[in-house]
Amino acid sequence: MQYKLAIIGFGNVGQGLVQILRDKGTELSKQFGADFRIVAICDLLKGSVCNPSGLDPATLLDVVAATGKIETMSAPHHGWDALRTIAESGADVVVELSYTDLKTGEPALTHLRAALNAGKHVVTTNKGPIALHYAELKKLADAKGMEIGAEGTVMSGTPSMRLGLELLAAAGVSRVQGIINGTTNYILTQMESGMTYADALNEAQAKGYAEADPTGDVEGYDAAGKAVILANLLMGATLTMNDVDRTGITGLTLQDIESAKAKDERWKLIGKVEKSGGKVSASVKPTRLPVTHPLASVGGATNALTFTTDLLGDVTLIGPGAGRLETGYAVLGDLLAIHRRFGK
Amino acid sequence: MQYKLAIIGFGNVGQGLVQILRDKGTELSKQFGADFRIVAICDLLKGSVCNPSGLDPATLLDVVAATGKIETMSAPHHGWDALRTIAESGADVVVELSYTDLKTGEPALTHLRAALNAGKHVVTTNKGPIALHYAELKKLADAKGMEIGAEGTVMSGTPSMRLGLELLAAAGVSRVQGIINGTTNYILTQMESGMTYADALNEAQAKGYAEADPTGDVEGYDAAGKAVILANLLMGATLTMNDVDRTGITGLTLQDIESAKAKDERWKLIGKVEKSGGKVSASVKPTRLPVTHPLASVGGATNALTFTTDLLGDVTLIGPGAGRLETGYAVLGDLLAIHRRFGK
Repeated sequence: MQYKLAIIGFGNVGQGLVQILRDKGTELSKQFGADFRIVAICDLLKGSVCNPSGLDPATLLDVVAATGKIETMSAPHHGWDALRTIAESGADVVVELSYTDLKTGEPALTHLRAALNAGKHVVTTNKGPIALHYAELKKLADAKGMEIGAEGTVMSGTPSMRLGLELLAAAGVSRVQGIINGTTNYILTQMESGMTYADALNEAQAKGYAEADPTGDVEGYDAAGKAVILANLLMGATLTMNDVDRTGITGLTLQDIESAKAKDERWKLIGKVEKSGGKVSASVKPTRLPVTHPLASVGGATNALTFTTDLLGDVTLIGPGAGRLETGYAVLGDLLAIHRRFGK
Repeated sequence: MQYKLAIIGFGNVGQGLVQILRDKGTELSKQFGADFRIVAICDLLKGSVCNPSGLDPATLLDVVAATGKIETMSAPHHGWDALRTIAESGADVVVELSYTDLKTGEPALTHLRAALNAGKHVVTTNKGPIALHYAELKKLADAKGMEIGAEGTVMSGTPSMRLGLELLAAAGVSRVQGIINGTTNYILTQMESGMTYADALNEAQAKGYAEADPTGDVEGYDAAGKAVILANLLMGATLTMNDVDRTGITGLTLQDIESAKAKDERWKLIGKVEKSGGKVSASVKPTRLPVTHPLASVGGATNALTFTTDLLGDVTLIGPGAGRLETGYAVLGDLLAIHRRFGK
């Protein structure tokens, strides 16, 4: 079965996905009977290119590496904007990877609506539209008989959403909590070894974990967006960003870290969603955990989620929370889920 | 969609499954559109009962709790042996939960063959036939267009097999390693807090974690069976029990534990399967891990597996490795997978 992909946004994640398709395309086709063909890519800065009969992944990566653009690649169509790409590229699946805006969800929201309205499946790693407008998008997708994949919005390609949605769905998930922001976990891990908050933040910025303006990470907004996603996708809630009881890590001092350490405890920024009496609540808070707690041993930029269930008790998943190939794999996971559902 | 289940073996796991169906049957039907109806149960000691139009789960549990038997429950048919139950109960799915024999795989092997040959799906938590004869059973299942579910053979209901087989299948799994025997992990955890091996074993026996003859656990045979299953199901290998490089924990002294502890390390019995140059190898060995390793913090009877993949690096799953409801949930997970595949 062949799937034609239009990719909106060609940054790290998009390039990671194209790299996976370049390196594993033949194997995927053999292993799963799914042939994922890129027919269009559109990026605000790098330009756009469309070939309804397929764009070669290796050439795409070479061209963007050499020129920083994709406009220069030979193809029947160039210069289409995102909406024209969605409408006219002949894609079956729109992969939305444009930049994240946790205030409006735009421009991704408009792209996703257009794609679903046009009867195309959508896959996104973009937290904005999923945290802010999932209920509307899901309703639209269901009405159109389409799939909406959002695995990469939490824990990148570590299959946390599908673990919760598919494999633990019948176990009765009452609480999901964990480390869902790698930047702050990296900073806290460095502070454990004696570094000040300022130095740890500088190092995180130097390594590319934290942005120049680190507010989104260190004040817990990124984690809060993910908590909303967990609540709404896994527990059928309709929370908004304002419903999250949110505290970041900027108030934590080296002394706080040391005094926890002296009691064999560790500070972690824990995102938590909990169902109780039919109501779902969400929080993001620095939390002291005993070092023996499974989440306490999760260091550096790694993420982890513990699902508390009726039938299995606690089940914890630990894995990467970011990265080019890692997040590209999230998209692939969603594409394969579409294939499992529709590719018969 | 309705599925008629014949359950062979009505010990802890079978009763756990029936309890889940009693408590969650209506919800499962609403949530997944799958109606799992028990039409027969057959147990060597408790007798057998069959009603092609369905046996009430609550009554089954009450009767077995009150009398230790199921023969006394009113139903059209009693006294059928396992093979007659498989052949004549009208079941669509045979749930094989008889006792485990890691030397021959019998009698479960005969039951599974009979069920598949009769065109019925099979689900089992029984390590024997899966560790010893998976390739043959899988071939038979494929030839008949039937499913063979074995989630509960490793980590009970913690969905480790489906994580590896479905969610990480495209990530390129090259190694799977972890704590797959809860009894030995419990003993090692107790020894960490200063208990001798003999005392810890006694305690594990008192708590029902270890059997009167603990050889299967402490010499690593149980873990070796699970390693074979991981190799053959997740990596397509055809290993046998003899291919596993196996060492148990009986050689570990309190002094070994203490000397590791002094270096911030911990002994764990690690089962490992690894693919290298097209060849799959398997081992079970006491291994010293730094306390910061994700597997080192897994204490007590909890199990854990780390999947090493091309695209995601390490992904670790931690959860229960035994238990009545926990292993019952493994069966339910496999039943729902059958429903996902065939219930359209």
